Amino acid sequence: MKFGVLGTGMVGKTLADKLISLGHEVAMGSRSAANPAAMQWAAHAGARAHAGTFADAARFGEILINATAGEASLTALQAAGADNLDGKILIDVANPIDIAAGIPPIRLSVCNTDSLAEQVQRAFPHARVVKTLNTMNCRIMVEPSLVEGHHTVFVSGNDNQAKAAVAGLLRSFGWPPEDVMDLGGLESARGTEMFLVLWSYLWGAIGNKPFNILVVTN
Amino acid sequence: MKFGVLGTGMVGKTLADKLISLGHEVAMGSRSAANPAAMQWAAHAGARAHAGTFADAARFGEILINATAGEASLTALQAAGADNLDGKILIDVANPIDIAAGIPPIRLSVCNTDSLAEQVQRAFPHARVVKTLNTMNCRIMVEPSLVEGHHTVFVSGNDNQAKAAVAGLLRSFGWPPEDVMDLGGLESARGTEMFLVLWSYLWGAIGNKPFNILVVTN
Repeated sequence: MKFGVLGTGMVGKTLADKLISLGHEVAMGSRSAANPAAMQWAAHAGARAHAGTFADAARFGEILINATAGEASLTALQAAGADNLDGKILIDVANPIDIAAGIPPIRLSVCNTDSLAEQVQRAFPHARVVKTLNTMNCRIMVEPSLVEGHHTVFVSGNDNQAKAAVAGLLRSFGWPPEDVMDLGGLESARGTEMFLVLWSYLWGAIGNKPFNILVVTN
Repeated sequence: MKFGVLGTGMVGKTLADKLISLGHEVAMGSRSAANPAAMQWAAHAGARAHAGTFADAARFGEILINATAGEASLTALQAAGADNLDGKILIDVANPIDIAAGIPPIRLSVCNTDSLAEQVQRAFPHARVVKTLNTMNCRIMVEPSLVEGHHTVFVSGNDNQAKAAVAGLLRSFGWPPEDVMDLGGLESARGTEMFLVLWSYLWGAIGNKPFNILVVTN
C-alpha cells in the first residue's frame, strides 16, 4: 500500500521505516522538497522510499500519517492541501506539546475542552482522522514486544471503517487485537493527548526503559 | 490511628468505612455539623465513627483525607482551618471536575499549568499534601483485588516521609508495594488529575466492570 508520512522527526522516520519493512511504499513529506532528513531517509530506505513536500507525500499516500510536531500540524496539513486529504484515512500520532513552555513539565497547547485531533478533523472535515499511538515512545509504536506482556494502544475516531483499517495496520505492527482499545469518537483523543502529561512523569520515574500502560479489567 | 475524612460523598464514605474496618477512628467532616449523610454514616459505622464540621474532623484527625468535590475542596479546607492542617499529612483524592460543564465529556476546572493538589499545597503550605488514589473508582481504592492481577496506584508529593506513610496506608488497603508508584513531586499530580479525562473514556468503553491501569515495564 502507499503511505504518506508527514514529518521527518524520529516518530516519522520510525513509522516510515516500519512501513517499508512491511513491504509498503512510503513518501515522507516535509516543508521543503529538499529537506535533508527526508532525502537522507529516502536514499537509505530503498526503492520504495520517497521524499517530497507535504503536498507530494499527501498526494502519494492512500493512507496518511501526521507525525509532525503537534503545534505545527495544522500548518503542515494546510500545506499538504485539503484536496490531498479528502476521503483518506489520516492517522494522527502527534501530541500538542507547547514547546515554548519548555519541559519538564510537559505543557499542552490545547487540552480539556478540545484536542489536536479534533482541530485537525474540523479543519479537514473530509479526512478520516484516527488518533492512535500517541501515548507511547515511537519505538514501542512499531515494536510493541519491546514492552513485555500485554499493554494497550488506544484508537479514537468518528469513522468506524477507518478505525478498523487502522486496527489492522496496528496488528501488522505487532499489536495483538486484544491490546487495541477503541475509545469511541474522536473527542476521546482529549483523553489520550492529556495522558501525555502523566506519561512524562512515568518517564521521569522509570527512565529510558521501554514502558507503556495496560488497561486491566476482569 | 485517628483520621479526619473531609467529604460525605461516596468516596469519603468508602474510605471512612475502610479505615473503620482496619481499626482506625474516623471523624467525617462536612459543611454543617448536622449533615445527614455524615450523621447517618457515624450512627451505623460503630463507636469509632464520628461526624462533625470540616473543622471538627480536621482537628480530630492525625491524618486527613480530602474527599470533597474538587471544585469545593479549597473552600472546605479553609473551613477546616489552616491550624488544623498544619504539619499533618493531607491525602488528596479529589479531582477538579468542572461540574457546571456537564459530563460526558469530563472537563477539568484546573489542569495543564497547575493542579488541584498544587493549589491546596500553596493555600496550606504547612500541610503535607500527598495526591493518590484519584485515578480510579473508589471501590477499587480500598479493595484493589476487585481488579484481577497487578494494577497501579500513583503517589505524588513534596514530602518523602509523608509519601512513605501514605504508601504504608495503601498497603493496609491491600495494595502490593510493587503496585504503588511514586511519581515524584506534587506537580506530578497534574498527570494523574489530567488522566481523569482518559479514565472517563475508558469507563465509557468498559462500562461498570472494575478496571484500572497497570504501568508495564521490563
